[in-house]
Amino acid sequence: MNFKVNSKELEKALSKVFPAVPTKTPVQILENFYFDISDGILSIYGTDLELAAKATLNVVADSDFKGVISARKLYDTVRSLDDTLLYFDVLEDTKRIKITWEKGEYLLSYISAQEFPEIPVFPSAEDESVFSISINGPDMKYAIEKTLFAVSKESFRPAMMGVLFEFSEEGLRFVSTDGHRLISLLFKNYSVEQPESYVVSSDVITILQKVLDDGEIKMFFTKSHVAFRLNDIELIARLIDERYPDYKSIIPLENEYDFSFNPSRLLSSVKRVIKVVSDPLKKVNFNLVEEGDIEINTDDSEMGDFAMEKISGSYKGEDMKIAFNGNYLIEILTHLSDLEQVSMKLRMPNKPVLISPVEEEENRELTMLLMPLRLNV
Amino acid sequence: MNFKVNSKELEKALSKVFPAVPTKTPVQILENFYFDISDGILSIYGTDLELAAKATLNVVADSDFKGVISARKLYDTVRSLDDTLLYFDVLEDTKRIKITWEKGEYLLSYISAQEFPEIPVFPSAEDESVFSISINGPDMKYAIEKTLFAVSKESFRPAMMGVLFEFSEEGLRFVSTDGHRLISLLFKNYSVEQPESYVVSSDVITILQKVLDDGEIKMFFTKSHVAFRLNDIELIARLIDERYPDYKSIIPLENEYDFSFNPSRLLSSVKRVIKVVSDPLKKVNFNLVEEGDIEINTDDSEMGDFAMEKISGSYKGEDMKIAFNGNYLIEILTHLSDLEQVSMKLRMPNKPVLISPVEEEENRELTMLLMPLRLNV
Repeated sequence: MNFKVNSKELEKALSKVFPAVPTKTPVQILENFYFDISDGILSIYGTDLELAAKATLNVVADSDFKGVISARKLYDTVRSLDDTLLYFDVLEDTKRIKITWEKGEYLLSYISAQEFPEIPVFPSAEDESVFSISINGPDMKYAIEKTLFAVSKESFRPAMMGVLFEFSEEGLRFVSTDGHRLISLLFKNYSVEQPESYVVSSDVITILQKVLDDGEIKMFFTKSHVAFRLNDIELIARLIDERYPDYKSIIPLENEYDFSFNPSRLLSSVKRVIKVVSDPLKKVNFNLVEEGDIEINTDDSEMGDFAMEKISGSYKGEDMKIAFNGNYLIEILTHLSDLEQVSMKLRMPNKPVLISPVEEEENRELTMLLMPLRLNV
Repeated sequence: MNFKVNSKELEKALSKVFPAVPTKTPVQILENFYFDISDGILSIYGTDLELAAKATLNVVADSDFKGVISARKLYDTVRSLDDTLLYFDVLEDTKRIKITWEKGEYLLSYISAQEFPEIPVFPSAEDESVFSISINGPDMKYAIEKTLFAVSKESFRPAMMGVLFEFSEEGLRFVSTDGHRLISLLFKNYSVEQPESYVVSSDVITILQKVLDDGEIKMFFTKSHVAFRLNDIELIARLIDERYPDYKSIIPLENEYDFSFNPSRLLSSVKRVIKVVSDPLKKVNFNLVEEGDIEINTDDSEMGDFAMEKISGSYKGEDMKIAFNGNYLIEILTHLSDLEQVSMKLRMPNKPVLISPVEEEENRELTMLLMPLRLNV
C-alpha cells in the first residue's frame, strides 16, 4: 500500500505526538509512533501507557494501514526536510516503509500493529456519562504557567503530584501544592451547576503545555480518565485516583498586614543575596517595618558572609521579621514576574503568607501561599 | 583600607578573568580572585596554575591592598547589580570585605594574599628574549573558530592537544589535528624573517576565545610561556613542550579530482542520513559521478534501515565511492558553513581529502584535511 503527504503537515502532526513518546522505557516498542490510516485519515499515536497523544491529518492513501515506526528516526528525518511531497510505500515482504521525495529515499523498518500495547480509548463527545467543558487556550496556558511548578515531585502523596481541577458554581479552580507552597487560581468564567473535581497528573499537563496554542481546548472527564481535545491533537491520561488535600483549610483568612512590591525587583535582590549562602535551605530573612527601610538579608554561618539589600515596596502592619526558603521564594516570584505589583498578606512569622496580584483581570483570582521558615533555624 | 569602583567597570574586568578561574579543583584557593591594588590600579588575577588571566582597572583607593576573594560569590553579586558606585572596605580584624552601595551591604570573607600560589610572571614588552607579534582581533577569532574544534582530546600525544602557531616568511600558520582530521590556516599578512613555532594549549585558546574582541592582540612567546595582551586583559599559559607532528608530510599534493558543493546544504543532508545509523562511526558513503546524480547514503546493519539523498554540487574526476565518519564530517561542514561554496579535492578512496573555500579572502589560506573510512568496514 502507499500514501502521500506533505512534509510540513506531517512534521506538525509528529511534533504534537512526539512529546508523549517515552525515551527511556523498558517497553521498547513504546518508543515508536503508532500509525493508523483509515479512509484517508492518518491517526498518529504515542503513548507511555499512562497517557497517550493522537494527531490526525488527511493523506492520499490507496488503502488502509496500521503499523509501528521509530518515533525518533521518523521525526528527526521529517522535521529537517524542506517543504516537499513525501511518498510512503509499505513494503510488506521486507517490513520496510520506503519514504521517497525529489532528493532522497529512506527505508525504515516497521513493526506490526498487533505488537503495540492497547491505547486508551479516546472519549466520544456523544457519550453522556462524560463530563465535558471547553476552556480557551490563553486561560489554560495561564493556568499551567501559574500552577504546574508547585506540583509535588514526591510520590508518597500521589494526589499532590497532580493539579486539582475543581468545577463549581464559583467557576473552575486550579490548585497545586507540594506542602511548602500552594497555588490557587480561580476562573469565574467557567461556572458549572454540579460540582466536579479531578486530579490531573502533572505528566499530561507538561505535554499539554508543549502542544497548546491559542485555540479552544475541549476537556472530557470520565471516572478514570481525562482527555484534552485541541484543534489537531488529542491527549488522554489516567486521572490520579486519590483524594486531594483539603486546601481550603490551609489558606489563612485573617492575614491583614500587607507588603506590596514589584516581584521582578524583589526577585533580583533575592537571587543575589542567596549567593552568599551555602546552606541548601537558602534562608532569606525579611525585616518589615511600616516606617523606614524594608530589608532582606542572608548569612552564611560557615563562611561568616552576610548580604543585606533594601527593598522598594510599602508595608502596612506591625513591624515583623519573617524568613522564607530562598528557592521557593524565587520560584514564586519568577511565576509572578509578569506583574507590576503584587501584595503579600501576612500576620505572624510562623503562619503562611498569601501573595496575589494587586490588579487582576476580571474573572480571575490568583493566590500563591508560601510557608515561612522558623526564624531561629 | 578602602576603595571605590563603578559596578559595571568592575563587572567587565571580573567577566574577563572569571573564565580562567577553575571550578572543581582540589586546590580550593584557586576558586578565588586574587586582588592586587597598587597605586590606584586594581589588578585581578585568576589561575589554575597552568594558565592565568589578569585584568586591570583604575580604582579610587586610599592605600595598597592584596587579598583573595571568592570568585563565584563576587562575580555573581556584581554582575547582577545596576550601574552604581561600590564602596569596598577591608575589615582586617574580621577578615571581611564590606561592599556597600545605595541599596545594599555585603560582607564577604577574604584570605591573605600570601596563601595564594605563585602566579606566572607576565612578560614585559621590553624584554628582548621575548618574541612578540601583534595580530588583529577578527583574524584571531577566525583562526580559533576554524582550528580549535579539531584539537585532540586524547592526552597520549600532548602536542596534539594544542594548536601550532608557526611563524615564517610565508606568514602565520595555525595547525590543529587529532589524527583523523587536520586543519591548516595560513595568514600571509603576518610574515616574519626568522621562523618560530610554538604549541599553544587548547585550554588557553578556549579562554582567549571567550574574552576576545575586535581589538588588536599582542602575543609574547618565551621558551616556556605564551602571553596574550588585549585591551584590558592579559592571559599567560605554559606552552606545550612537545614536538608537533610533521603535518606537511600528511597533506597530499596530487588530489586532482574536485567535488564542489554548498557546505550548509550538504551538512543538513549528512545530519539527516546519519539519524538512521546506530553504529557510533556513523559512516556516510559518497557516490561521486561526473555525469548524473551525486549521492550520499548510510545504512544500519542492525535494523536494516537505509537512507539516500541526492546532493547538489559538481564533480570533476573519475567515478569514485568514498566514505567518511559522519561525526567528523558534520564538525568540518559546521565550521565551513559560513561559506557559499567549498571544494573537496580527492584522488583515492583510502587517501585523505582536502576541503577548502572556493573563494577566499586575500592573505588567507584555509585547508581542512579529512581521513576517509575504509569502504568495506
